[in-house]
Amino acid sequence: MGTTDNSLSASVRVIDASRLEERTFAVLREAGADEPSAHAATRALMHASRIGVDSHGVRLVAHYAKALRGGRIKGAPHITVRRTGVSAALVDADDGLGHLAAYRAMEEACALARENGVGAVGVCRSSHYGAAGAYALAAAEMGLVGLTTTNADSIVALHDGVVPFHGTNPIAMAAPVLGERPWLLDMATSSVPMNRVHLYATLGRQLPENVAADQSGRPTTDASLAQMLIPLGGSEFGFKGAGLAGLVTILSAVLTGAAPDPAMLPMTGTNDFATPRNVGHFCIALDPDRFVGRATYDTLMSQYLLALRSSSAHSGTQSLAPGDREWMVEAERATTGIPVDLATAALLGFP
Amino acid sequence: MGTTDNSLSASVRVIDASRLEERTFAVLREAGADEPSAHAATRALMHASRIGVDSHGVRLVAHYAKALRGGRIKGAPHITVRRTGVSAALVDADDGLGHLAAYRAMEEACALARENGVGAVGVCRSSHYGAAGAYALAAAEMGLVGLTTTNADSIVALHDGVVPFHGTNPIAMAAPVLGERPWLLDMATSSVPMNRVHLYATLGRQLPENVAADQSGRPTTDASLAQMLIPLGGSEFGFKGAGLAGLVTILSAVLTGAAPDPAMLPMTGTNDFATPRNVGHFCIALDPDRFVGRATYDTLMSQYLLALRSSSAHSGTQSLAPGDREWMVEAERATTGIPVDLATAALLGFP
Repeated sequence: MGTTDNSLSASVRVIDASRLEERTFAVLREAGADEPSAHAATRALMHASRIGVDSHGVRLVAHYAKALRGGRIKGAPHITVRRTGVSAALVDADDGLGHLAAYRAMEEACALARENGVGAVGVCRSSHYGAAGAYALAAAEMGLVGLTTTNADSIVALHDGVVPFHGTNPIAMAAPVLGERPWLLDMATSSVPMNRVHLYATLGRQLPENVAADQSGRPTTDASLAQMLIPLGGSEFGFKGAGLAGLVTILSAVLTGAAPDPAMLPMTGTNDFATPRNVGHFCIALDPDRFVGRATYDTLMSQYLLALRSSSAHSGTQSLAPGDREWMVEAERATTGIPVDLATAALLGFP
Repeated sequence: MGTTDNSLSASVRVIDASRLEERTFAVLREAGADEPSAHAATRALMHASRIGVDSHGVRLVAHYAKALRGGRIKGAPHITVRRTGVSAALVDADDGLGHLAAYRAMEEACALARENGVGAVGVCRSSHYGAAGAYALAAAEMGLVGLTTTNADSIVALHDGVVPFHGTNPIAMAAPVLGERPWLLDMATSSVPMNRVHLYATLGRQLPENVAADQSGRPTTDASLAQMLIPLGGSEFGFKGAGLAGLVTILSAVLTGAAPDPAMLPMTGTNDFATPRNVGHFCIALDPDRFVGRATYDTLMSQYLLALRSSSAHSGTQSLAPGDREWMVEAERATTGIPVDLATAALLGFP
């Protein structure tokens, strides 16, 4: 994986993972989340915080607490899972925390995949689900290949577009690796997330070329002028990033009955914390046992990763597979603790 | 979709589609393809030629004829479809033309999806299957959402890599649209295809920044020095393109038993046209009837596309959805004919 500088903040408080987990759960419970909801959200937030994706880590607890208190997100949703086919299901998230609905959906997809080879489960009437990789990983930890997407509110211009259209619409996949942590890809279909732009604006730091645009849709490297993102591929090949964002919208919203990105209420930058947003997700699980078989899958996966990690890199070190950097951070943070920005630390009771 | 300049060649012969189709079929038959194989390959090649993706159009017939004559590709394969789960199957392509195996796989995936909501079918022991979009489109024309991937021989560096590792590993998805041609995305996970690099070298034209690298893996805009491609996202965000290429390898090869990209024999630039290459593909079909239901799917899809096409673009014209440009080219070529490079035209009997 490439450079992630989601933890650029100068001032942090380093907190032991288990204490952080406890307090995250407690704050969500205090904000009105029932036990399963708070558990699921904590699990997803801690996944991101453990592996260094701090943009989607415990920092988000303030946002979820506000949405729970405002009524936008229901703390005690009545989630329903409806089998719509032998290998398909639709989850109605009842405007609860997206994490609970997405873990339920991926568990259902995995159960269907174990029975039938593949399972596909859509989720409607949901909310922000944090790091997509959390749910793909859940499948891989059960021995299956997991794929998930979520749509989001308009913040990324179309290719050659002058206004925001798609969300950052991530695609995540995780695949089990024998004797190792899974292969894990979790990527937005824009080059950078919007909160990196905000962070750079705060730090007075210049953005890379062709990742963000100003109010009129012109590419800018001035983070303080950036009003929207440019899709992955930049000014020249952004039609690919925009196409992938559309793929995510079709799976997550059009197939599930959720709100397509341009029709979705904004997640932030609004005073309305009362109206649900009808976010959509999609989960697919595939069981290697029902394709080439476990033994061959394991052998090919290990051979592929060995070849990848033996491949020369400019830096003179080994090439990394998606997830490799994250598992290194996870190991490091397990001993050193997790750096948390001061505002979030205070909210969680670490003054 | 963005600019495709796959038809830059100066000298072309413009040929009526039905005559081109006849001759393509005939030349494949003469090279040893049996009727179903020649039919499938012709269908896929004509799909690409009709919509303007000339890099994957009838131009490839010379290559397939050579591979058929050399024995690398079997003209009369015994393709087997094995149900490995209620909603899953594996296709053994028996070293035949990839087009036949992939159409079979997508048809099987669609049949499974109609029964069960989703179908997933892997293909091993296959060969180059041309434009991935052909098979996704086949699903959409049956009213289903179709997804397909194929792996390929090493030609794209890893992010920060100095040697070729992944293939150009395309991802294609097509989705039906009520009363219109389908939404259709077909994209390599590199920024450009290698044959565009070769074309630019011939024309003495400069490459865009960060799409190709020289022998030592350093980015170059000199097409004559380019020895490998850089993944989508370029020097800064190429870890995303490389991650997507890996996703394709895992689905297409690791789950199916095909050769992972670095273990695959090269498609071109080799004298060995006798040894099969064990290319892998993957197909997923999803039935909207088994998710949110057809009526809601159709409504949401139309609303989404209306919003997209109403979204302002820099060019002052409407924004385009994936496929829009291709369907315009298709309509144009239906009346004007299809431009074919002179060497291919001659091979097909249009001197």
